[in-house]
Amino acid sequence: MRRLLLGIAVFFITLNGLWAQNAKVDRKIRDLLGKMTLEEKIGQMTQVNYSEIGEKGWAGGMPARDKLRKALLEYHVGSILNTPGEGADAVMWREVIRKIQEMAVTETRLKIPVIYGVDAIHGVSYTANSTLFPHNIGTAAGRDPELAKKIAQVTAAETRASGIRWNFDPVLGLGRQPLWPRFEETFGEDVLLVTEMGRATIVGYEGDGLKNPTAVASCMKHYIGYSVPRNGKDRTGAYISDIDLRERFLPPFKAAVDAGATTLMVNSAAINDIPVHADKKLLTDLLRDELGFGGLVVTDWEDIIYLKDKHRMAKDNVHAIALAINAGVDMSMVPMRYVEFCEDLKKAVDMGLVSEARIDEAVTRVLRTKFKLGLFDNPYPEKGVEDNFGKPEYAELALEAARESVTLLKNDTLLGNPVLPLAKDMKILVAGPASNSLAALHGSWSYTHWGAKENLYSKATLTLKEAIEKKVGKENVLCQAVTDFHAQANTDPATALKGIEGVDAVILCLGEGGYAEKGGDINELDLPAEQISLAKVAALYGKPVVLVLAEGRPRIVREIEPAMAAVLDAYRPGSKGADAVADILFGDHNPSGILPFSYPKYSGNITTYDGKFDTVSPRYGGKPRDVQWDFGHGLSYGKFELSELKLNSNSIRGGQKLTVSVKVTNTGQMDGKKTVELYTRDLWASVAPDWKRLRKFKKIVLKAGESQTVSFVIDRNDLSFVNRDLKRVTEDGDFEVMVGGMTEKFTYQNSGKRL
Amino acid sequence: MRRLLLGIAVFFITLNGLWAQNAKVDRKIRDLLGKMTLEEKIGQMTQVNYSEIGEKGWAGGMPARDKLRKALLEYHVGSILNTPGEGADAVMWREVIRKIQEMAVTETRLKIPVIYGVDAIHGVSYTANSTLFPHNIGTAAGRDPELAKKIAQVTAAETRASGIRWNFDPVLGLGRQPLWPRFEETFGEDVLLVTEMGRATIVGYEGDGLKNPTAVASCMKHYIGYSVPRNGKDRTGAYISDIDLRERFLPPFKAAVDAGATTLMVNSAAINDIPVHADKKLLTDLLRDELGFGGLVVTDWEDIIYLKDKHRMAKDNVHAIALAINAGVDMSMVPMRYVEFCEDLKKAVDMGLVSEARIDEAVTRVLRTKFKLGLFDNPYPEKGVEDNFGKPEYAELALEAARESVTLLKNDTLLGNPVLPLAKDMKILVAGPASNSLAALHGSWSYTHWGAKENLYSKATLTLKEAIEKKVGKENVLCQAVTDFHAQANTDPATALKGIEGVDAVILCLGEGGYAEKGGDINELDLPAEQISLAKVAALYGKPVVLVLAEGRPRIVREIEPAMAAVLDAYRPGSKGADAVADILFGDHNPSGILPFSYPKYSGNITTYDGKFDTVSPRYGGKPRDVQWDFGHGLSYGKFELSELKLNSNSIRGGQKLTVSVKVTNTGQMDGKKTVELYTRDLWASVAPDWKRLRKFKKIVLKAGESQTVSFVIDRNDLSFVNRDLKRVTEDGDFEVMVGGMTEKFTYQNSGKRL
Repeated sequence: MRRLLLGIAVFFITLNGLWAQNAKVDRKIRDLLGKMTLEEKIGQMTQVNYSEIGEKGWAGGMPARDKLRKALLEYHVGSILNTPGEGADAVMWREVIRKIQEMAVTETRLKIPVIYGVDAIHGVSYTANSTLFPHNIGTAAGRDPELAKKIAQVTAAETRASGIRWNFDPVLGLGRQPLWPRFEETFGEDVLLVTEMGRATIVGYEGDGLKNPTAVASCMKHYIGYSVPRNGKDRTGAYISDIDLRERFLPPFKAAVDAGATTLMVNSAAINDIPVHADKKLLTDLLRDELGFGGLVVTDWEDIIYLKDKHRMAKDNVHAIALAINAGVDMSMVPMRYVEFCEDLKKAVDMGLVSEARIDEAVTRVLRTKFKLGLFDNPYPEKGVEDNFGKPEYAELALEAARESVTLLKNDTLLGNPVLPLAKDMKILVAGPASNSLAALHGSWSYTHWGAKENLYSKATLTLKEAIEKKVGKENVLCQAVTDFHAQANTDPATALKGIEGVDAVILCLGEGGYAEKGGDINELDLPAEQISLAKVAALYGKPVVLVLAEGRPRIVREIEPAMAAVLDAYRPGSKGADAVADILFGDHNPSGILPFSYPKYSGNITTYDGKFDTVSPRYGGKPRDVQWDFGHGLSYGKFELSELKLNSNSIRGGQKLTVSVKVTNTGQMDGKKTVELYTRDLWASVAPDWKRLRKFKKIVLKAGESQTVSFVIDRNDLSFVNRDLKRVTEDGDFEVMVGGMTEKFTYQNSGKRL
Repeated sequence: MRRLLLGIAVFFITLNGLWAQNAKVDRKIRDLLGKMTLEEKIGQMTQVNYSEIGEKGWAGGMPARDKLRKALLEYHVGSILNTPGEGADAVMWREVIRKIQEMAVTETRLKIPVIYGVDAIHGVSYTANSTLFPHNIGTAAGRDPELAKKIAQVTAAETRASGIRWNFDPVLGLGRQPLWPRFEETFGEDVLLVTEMGRATIVGYEGDGLKNPTAVASCMKHYIGYSVPRNGKDRTGAYISDIDLRERFLPPFKAAVDAGATTLMVNSAAINDIPVHADKKLLTDLLRDELGFGGLVVTDWEDIIYLKDKHRMAKDNVHAIALAINAGVDMSMVPMRYVEFCEDLKKAVDMGLVSEARIDEAVTRVLRTKFKLGLFDNPYPEKGVEDNFGKPEYAELALEAARESVTLLKNDTLLGNPVLPLAKDMKILVAGPASNSLAALHGSWSYTHWGAKENLYSKATLTLKEAIEKKVGKENVLCQAVTDFHAQANTDPATALKGIEGVDAVILCLGEGGYAEKGGDINELDLPAEQISLAKVAALYGKPVVLVLAEGRPRIVREIEPAMAAVLDAYRPGSKGADAVADILFGDHNPSGILPFSYPKYSGNITTYDGKFDTVSPRYGGKPRDVQWDFGHGLSYGKFELSELKLNSNSIRGGQKLTVSVKVTNTGQMDGKKTVELYTRDLWASVAPDWKRLRKFKKIVLKAGESQTVSFVIDRNDLSFVNRDLKRVTEDGDFEVMVGGMTEKFTYQNSGKRL
């Protein structure tokens, strides 16, 4: 009791302190605003690319004093982004930041520090030798939000160690369009999974408090619906129903806002024919008024210019700027033609197209973010941050994350034995374009935008070939693969399969090279024809072929899958990805990743597990939903058996809780982890319900032979949906709960508010 | 002047007569309604499948008296649909109708005739030896609304000659999802084309007046948005933006309502997560209140049952019925479990879920349709209708329609000469599954639902092989193809290409067999692998290979197209399709069809010509829009040159007209037809404008060497679009007009109502 009282007292004292602090910051912001000219305000809303200040332009280099003076002193620019060039290490980064801030806080009239932002995606992407984790799609396969949080914490530490305090991450879009080249940056197709992983990532970035040199300001992106372009091409329009926008696309942003995310980046494309950068309903009414987001909204790359040139929504740049700023944008990632932006925004204000009140609101949010990040206290890289870089435990975490993510999709039994794990006394042929490619293991945002420059990776990072050599000895590995993913030698069977007759097994490493954003647009989901051919030839020698996929999105393998003895999806596993794959291939780790998306089998049959009855149910499918592997699929060495699904009641009312328990037994020979997933199905509702929906998941550790009872508690929130009036409701009716192939029914009753 | 006055007088006298007549009908309907029991009213809202009354059930046969008594006398059923069985000819059809109507008007209490409905798609589909025209996709390639009207007139005549007065046609959905198995039933991807062709078809069906035995009641279908299922599967959900719904999907329905279409069928699927059968906003607010449609709304097959079983929108049939009827459905195509429907609708009324006023409104619409069709005057097949069947001019029209539709997509030049037309003294190998298949030439709704029973086609209908034999002599044609489209012999190169060494040219007939609706769902847009292989082998012999595609939707041919010397798309050309293709192949007709859709090149790059700048413009495409052949593409023998694009002004204001003229010259050696298309582009607007939009088209005839100046008049309506408030507006600004590769700019000014 005394502890409770103490707790309450501490809480109120803290709260009071917080209030006082906020009030103080607000006062400072008001003071500053009062002193600022319109030009100075506009400068705070301007984000400039490093190419405009670096001595070598697009090649970066140290800040050029004349360029920096122009940006900071002449145009009062408040924010800079992007890399000072290939190979920049943390030392150089800190020096770059120091130089920029020095001018900002000593030479500008009001001494307002710059906020520097960077894409630190799956690690601090543009700092040499940084720790790169699996891309989100792999982390989601790992199904462990706590791990996602730790990844974000290390990323934050290494970002801050590079002197940077603002990270344009995480992607909170749902991966439901596998053609989309940023699929790897998503946490998969399911809203609960994206929400939980996204929230954990935000907490990982910001949880230490932004003044702490282990935290960064996160950036929820891209608000909203960016991830499902209708024709699969990056930055092209999506159609999303009003219901689905709220049912699936909004919850990850809502959870992130509630978790305290500081900034948000806008979707470059149009939803339902309206570019989001010009959509006040989404950027202000929904985001500010309904979700209550008070932080900074920044555009994506050139998107105000695109409003004019690409979306054709304005006759000139002045009107395009007015459209975006009035819709709710606080800062423009111009990022090159910033003089034009500054001058044209001024014109827009002079013409009365944008009010000064709107400018003040935007600038207030920019300044508040800078205060929140402690930039006014000390804008320079803090003392000691250099220690938070490249720690051995970071590498260990990268290994753990990769191990958790890699997903065993198939494991045939040959002569009574499972193909995997392989014995370490085998002679192995390693073939395919992903065999010796770091790009394939890392994908986008890996030392370069596309991650395709092999020479920029740390010497400590292994390719699959090298990791396999570590397991069985160099002398037992045959491999002709070259590091250039697209080299013909990698897919030419005569080269790639040289010596196949003499080996015990083939590890065929297929997938995708490095690409990012629009550069990763593809016209077909099928794995490229040369890779399919290589797999077909490899299968002709009577050797077991183990397929390892290193890919950012599910490329179709229907034609070759039957000939593969085992299949692993590594996604983009990062710095320790090859080690993790090798650990799994040779039995040093029991795989536990499960798919965070439905792996399609046909290019003309793209569905998600949570579709409506008419697309998913075999009864009404004509042809039933036909996927290569379903959402949640993933094998381990050994077997986890689920039994005894029990409900504490077969009906709940009002706010009552339903406890669902299930017994999980590891009947295999190896210790391992198992993700238990609970789904519900609404048997009828006033809006056509989904076939099923993931409501809870939990990853547990079980020793060989061990059993554990896992319990979940669900309530009406877990049964709710967005109705025709766009309100989230729970309707009375019949439901099913499904765990591991078992189903139980229950009813919910509250109001009788059913049709 | 006197003629004008006379005209006005006649107009008012006619109008007055119409009013008097309508008032009389209204009175009769009120009288009838006053006498009807609730059960009798419900019966009028009930449409039953022929299986429930035919003596052989699903096999049809003559009506079984006991079954008919149950339906008409016991359950007061007011409508019947579908075929009395395979091979039924017009004589049998009339007898079936006579028997049904006889019981209806002599034995039922109120002597209300039955309204019989049928799918008479591209001709009266289920009457033996009927004239079958190209499916709509081919008619749209013909670009001649007058021809579409004539096709509808003949279809109406032959339908009425079969004793039937209600035709569930035309499809007014836009063909923008090529996976959709009903793509062939659409007029293609463009809203103007669908609108004009749809309107002409409605006028063709109903223009003679529904009491006239050459007219039928049309049925606009399927309202609305059925044609663009997200994953391509029939009867699954679509996402359509509110703007696009009105910009593209609504205008064909609006034009059809304005043209006097009598009935409407509802989309079976959901738009934006709400099944249309349960959507009062679409079925009542938009359709009735806004479009002003006063006619009969019928469900599609089993769709009220599906509301419960498939969409899971109701806990039982009673509630499902209430949902649909309250949304605005007047008649349920039950069509089998009709006792359940009648009883459950009664329950719904008894429970207060459906008002009697709503019942009366629905029944009024049913009865009014019956009055309009003259069924109360004479429900039997009229005297002399039998003459309106199988007339020689119908076959001539079928030939003309097919000739106009077939589209020459490619015609290489070999040794200085175009590959097509072929000389008639050649030895020809005809190969591929479509060579000897009537199913491939007809597709759905051709004597059977799938059109796949070769033995049910008229003996006069030729396969491609037979039509080619007529051109060059049987002795000069090698062909091993069998009539079963899917027989392996058709694609096995050893069989199919037997004798290829000795021929002058190969005509390779690929495409699709017969299928309809859900049965035509596919998982891939690529042409099946065996057909691709056959084409690759055929190309190895050094003979020119002419590819003839008989297909309902654009199957991808990217891999084989370069090896084909010429390519024709025949779509589903119907009864005289083979003759038309042969006429074109051998130079007896100069082809003039042009694509009514964008022929995709890649399964993962499905776009329409009228996409937004961000998907279509090469500048922002990353990879530009990459199609096999674009919307509007189609070659002829010889060349039409367009020149001298002229505008009568470079600016218009308010309601002013802009006259655009262009000179067209036939520089070729053959007389021919050319479709001139006028497009506009809006350079900026308050909603992201489309890349370009077809605004006018005109097909003209030009003799060899002849020139003609074609003029179009456009005004603000042609520049309008649906804005964010869902209003159709024309905004001031800059526009481009494009004809035949030439572009001119102009401005529009009215209000200054731009951003």
